[in-house]
Amino acid sequence: MNALPQSEIRISLDQATIQPLPNSRKIYVEGSRSDLRVPMREISQSATPTQFGGEDNPPIYVYDASGPYTDPACAINLENGLAPLRAGWIEERRDCQPVEELGSAYSRERASDPALDALRFNLKRTPLRAKPGGNVTQMHYARCGIVTPEMEFVAIRENLHRDHYLQQLRETGNQRMLDLLSRQHPGQSFGARLSERITPEFVRDEVAAGRAIIPVNINHPESEPMIIGRNFLVKINGNIGNSALSSSIHDEVDKMTWGIRWGADTIMDLSTGKNIHETREWILRNSPVPVGTVPIYQALEKVNGKAEDLSWDILRDTLIEQAEQGVDYFTLHAGVLLRYVPLTAKRMTGIVSRGGSIMAKWCLAHHQENFLYTHFDELCQILKQYDVAISLGDGLRPGSVFDANDEAQLAELKTLGELTQIAWRHDVQVMIEGPGHVPMQLIRENMDKELDWCHEAPFYTLGPLTTDIAPGYDHITSAIGAAQIGWYGTAMLCYVTPKEHLGLPDRNDVKEGIITYKLAAHAADLAKGHPGAQIRDNALSKARFEFRWEDQFNLGLDPDRARAFHDQTLPKDSAKVAHFCSMCGPQFCSMKITQDVRAYAESQGIDSQQALKQGMKDKAIEFISSGGKLYDKV
Amino acid sequence: MNALPQSEIRISLDQATIQPLPNSRKIYVEGSRSDLRVPMREISQSATPTQFGGEDNPPIYVYDASGPYTDPACAINLENGLAPLRAGWIEERRDCQPVEELGSAYSRERASDPALDALRFNLKRTPLRAKPGGNVTQMHYARCGIVTPEMEFVAIRENLHRDHYLQQLRETGNQRMLDLLSRQHPGQSFGARLSERITPEFVRDEVAAGRAIIPVNINHPESEPMIIGRNFLVKINGNIGNSALSSSIHDEVDKMTWGIRWGADTIMDLSTGKNIHETREWILRNSPVPVGTVPIYQALEKVNGKAEDLSWDILRDTLIEQAEQGVDYFTLHAGVLLRYVPLTAKRMTGIVSRGGSIMAKWCLAHHQENFLYTHFDELCQILKQYDVAISLGDGLRPGSVFDANDEAQLAELKTLGELTQIAWRHDVQVMIEGPGHVPMQLIRENMDKELDWCHEAPFYTLGPLTTDIAPGYDHITSAIGAAQIGWYGTAMLCYVTPKEHLGLPDRNDVKEGIITYKLAAHAADLAKGHPGAQIRDNALSKARFEFRWEDQFNLGLDPDRARAFHDQTLPKDSAKVAHFCSMCGPQFCSMKITQDVRAYAESQGIDSQQALKQGMKDKAIEFISSGGKLYDKV
Repeated sequence: MNALPQSEIRISLDQATIQPLPNSRKIYVEGSRSDLRVPMREISQSATPTQFGGEDNPPIYVYDASGPYTDPACAINLENGLAPLRAGWIEERRDCQPVEELGSAYSRERASDPALDALRFNLKRTPLRAKPGGNVTQMHYARCGIVTPEMEFVAIRENLHRDHYLQQLRETGNQRMLDLLSRQHPGQSFGARLSERITPEFVRDEVAAGRAIIPVNINHPESEPMIIGRNFLVKINGNIGNSALSSSIHDEVDKMTWGIRWGADTIMDLSTGKNIHETREWILRNSPVPVGTVPIYQALEKVNGKAEDLSWDILRDTLIEQAEQGVDYFTLHAGVLLRYVPLTAKRMTGIVSRGGSIMAKWCLAHHQENFLYTHFDELCQILKQYDVAISLGDGLRPGSVFDANDEAQLAELKTLGELTQIAWRHDVQVMIEGPGHVPMQLIRENMDKELDWCHEAPFYTLGPLTTDIAPGYDHITSAIGAAQIGWYGTAMLCYVTPKEHLGLPDRNDVKEGIITYKLAAHAADLAKGHPGAQIRDNALSKARFEFRWEDQFNLGLDPDRARAFHDQTLPKDSAKVAHFCSMCGPQFCSMKITQDVRAYAESQGIDSQQALKQGMKDKAIEFISSGGKLYDKV
Repeated sequence: MNALPQSEIRISLDQATIQPLPNSRKIYVEGSRSDLRVPMREISQSATPTQFGGEDNPPIYVYDASGPYTDPACAINLENGLAPLRAGWIEERRDCQPVEELGSAYSRERASDPALDALRFNLKRTPLRAKPGGNVTQMHYARCGIVTPEMEFVAIRENLHRDHYLQQLRETGNQRMLDLLSRQHPGQSFGARLSERITPEFVRDEVAAGRAIIPVNINHPESEPMIIGRNFLVKINGNIGNSALSSSIHDEVDKMTWGIRWGADTIMDLSTGKNIHETREWILRNSPVPVGTVPIYQALEKVNGKAEDLSWDILRDTLIEQAEQGVDYFTLHAGVLLRYVPLTAKRMTGIVSRGGSIMAKWCLAHHQENFLYTHFDELCQILKQYDVAISLGDGLRPGSVFDANDEAQLAELKTLGELTQIAWRHDVQVMIEGPGHVPMQLIRENMDKELDWCHEAPFYTLGPLTTDIAPGYDHITSAIGAAQIGWYGTAMLCYVTPKEHLGLPDRNDVKEGIITYKLAAHAADLAKGHPGAQIRDNALSKARFEFRWEDQFNLGLDPDRARAFHDQTLPKDSAKVAHFCSMCGPQFCSMKITQDVRAYAESQGIDSQQALKQGMKDKAIEFISSGGKLYDKV
């Protein structure tokens, strides 16, 4: 754990990371107060080509996790970190105060080590903690009936400016356009309660009931509040983090900013390598999304990798260290009980969770109960002073299809349900982690049992991977499972990258994983029938049908790739306004033919339905003689 | 349609296409006769490392669509085409004969055009046709109670040498290994009848009932029989084909051979560009998998792209042309009825099927019923003389989530059910094409209605894509839908490549699409509970757990990518035997810890379950003092 020479922490931002996305503009929807400004991305569109009606197409609004990076009005300087947008809200509650000294011995040691000066983020403010006996969790406020600015923020955010969008559409007076763009298939929600319009009070009630969490540590005021719960949009998490083998602070900050650009709703820093403390500080100070960690990883580093030397005291110090830095949620493998460990002996792949295996080893070595479990009450006492949410880790999740839904996994899940109730007694926010590797026919059981045994606490699943036979493609084997479990009710999906099982994800893998999970989460929203979810699909399909190529690219999750793929077949700019599809060429473009059919019917002063009902044999003849060759050679 | 200069048809094979896959060997399982040799791929494995038991790991057997290309014993010469392995079986049935002259005027014209000499495949044999009044379809034989060699071939193929594999395992006398490798979760089959062991008689009965098809044109004797039906393994199709904009004969043959290497069970040649006839001949003569086409594409070329100039006569000539070349199945959009066309006027994206839009345009122009529908009986009369199966095209499939499961789509599906019964009266084999773009909650309805309305004829779906918002990633949006509909009962999944909606797939896209669909089909097999499906997952997971990196790569669908990804993090050869995972490094390898836990328990002469039950506090102390640091630094 030696300090790196200063040259190694040159932290800079790739220009690609801070460009606004094409035809996109950051907007802020203001809430009940002027310092409550909720970011969204507005994607503007071109007008429909004249021959298809020439109508204007209203901009659409999409969820935007990218923070100030994509706002040209914000000056980004990683050395300074992001503006603490929530600082005022936290302060005005008057229930916390700056710590007199750092609560963690380890933090104090790092802070006073001059060898680390070169790589330390220069944080000028003092960490906060609840006043003695206080509780600063969003769940606590919710249960006191308080609607916090954070709750109002997420309410506005979840509504995605839909009222405004529909109003715009209505103002066009174009009923067909309104119908096309706002219609949506009924969903199948498996018991989720989806509201046409999310109110701050609804958010409060969901948080109070434990069905949703808003992970917002008071020491991470830079974060833009977001919510995780099955009655809201399905979220995704991207994992980053160095390992003993590779990576640097710069690379991790780069992966974080790159990940949120493409839609990561939260980031987990799973670093296990050098300078974990300092790496995390850089990430937190520059992250507009909640950051999660697995504190046991760092604790293990502190005992030089000897799991049996871990103790509650070391972990406790680590929890305080990280809570004071601003980590928004901790994965804690508190459900790996001594008596469950032997259940994994019959498995194909044993224990595959890193945290789970560490705790299992500790339990076996000491023949004692997991200290996270035995100290869970004390742990909650600490976390409520910072509002760190708990993500109850599934340390015994299956690492292969073979091990799916086995006794060990389900035994732990039941324990997580018990722990949830303990956390809730402290008003500590909780979510439950889920598998892993699960074939499709066993996925539903995971969701149903989680809802039942864990009292509807939000489920946060890794995939699940639906087969083991495709290393190199596990972002896809898992997206199949993720879309389904998201549909059934999982609140947040933890991404899997193509490198899963094989190597550490790089920048490109992070993007591939994020986009894959964004589309899976969106497929889940559509299937649940999340109000307004289909607006973006509708807009993109309309653009596609009208050969508005640029709009089609820009409305998609990855405009850059869409454009690049189109360029490979039809590189010319003129092709971007071509009225045929690059796949089939001008002769075989079915969309073109459909347009022609529709235009013909309309040119007869009747819609095509009426045309045929009246029996239009004469008109058919006219069609042949006048229309002749219907598609223009380009 | 001018001939290309000779230099343009240099057809050659990339060396990468004919290398056996790593640690793989082509084997042939012999049937009841010496000329019935069913190819499979045997993947051998290394022994378990000594510290984990040192046991031998038996080779596993996987379905192999790659044909003679991956058999070093076969000399491949594209100019000669593949050996006609079925020629003897066809001949000995004595129910067909060489045609006196080519049945298609167009074929005769092409054959006699000296300008085409340079690009013509030099086929030395004469096409066959049923003797007058005869019927040479597999369905006809099945209904006559005959088990053909083709049926026996697919029965052996579907069993994947499982008896042999299990016998091998039993011979080791290692009960734990047998349990680990052969255990499988019960499936949810939605009414599919999956047999522990497929017999030739079962194949016959399924074909006779119309629940499965074996697409084997008597003029494509090079093909290795395969079966499409929901009571068999889920299959996948890969589309290739040139367009007016690009591609060459060489490129298409290259894509076909590359596609089958990675697992395409059938190939559709969707060419719409130059020299369709000659391109197809090269593909057929070199394809060991069934080849499908959409004959209306070529018919449209013959009338210079004017859909209204199409006629039954032109199409009829095209059907005969292609049937005599050996096309195994035709997509025919015979369900696009005049009265359904107006139903598409209310759609977001109209008609997106190329064939569907051509037929719709013809219907509207003439105000007459679709000539494929009105001549369907005559059409079946032709096809049964060659055993060309019909794939009833869904010309009105939805092209957007918005249009999913609408009136137009479902009206056509019902008509496809009527046409199925007409085809079956001629013993012509039929499958039904399905969508398209469908959000998850509407997928099941497609499957259920298809089974009901189309009398359990095999369903063959494109995706479906579960959202429209990810151009560039539609192989994934659709794999999510494909895995689900495959689970529900779809017999064959038509792949979608990353280029969908954006451009023509190249060689890399073909591979990406094929692997994505192979994993989706396999996920479906697992979920249905297809007997033995989990063997490959189990073997790969065991290799993964035992740090047999090379075996993990080789047992996967794409060993090359898995190895390359691993190399990116840990490039050294020594890392391929490293006992830790490249993702986490040696300290954090949970698998390593699990191994240690298990090894410790075993070293105490008890399994870990008993160890804990007995209360092993003393042993725990021993564990700490003796084991000390459990993971070795590498």
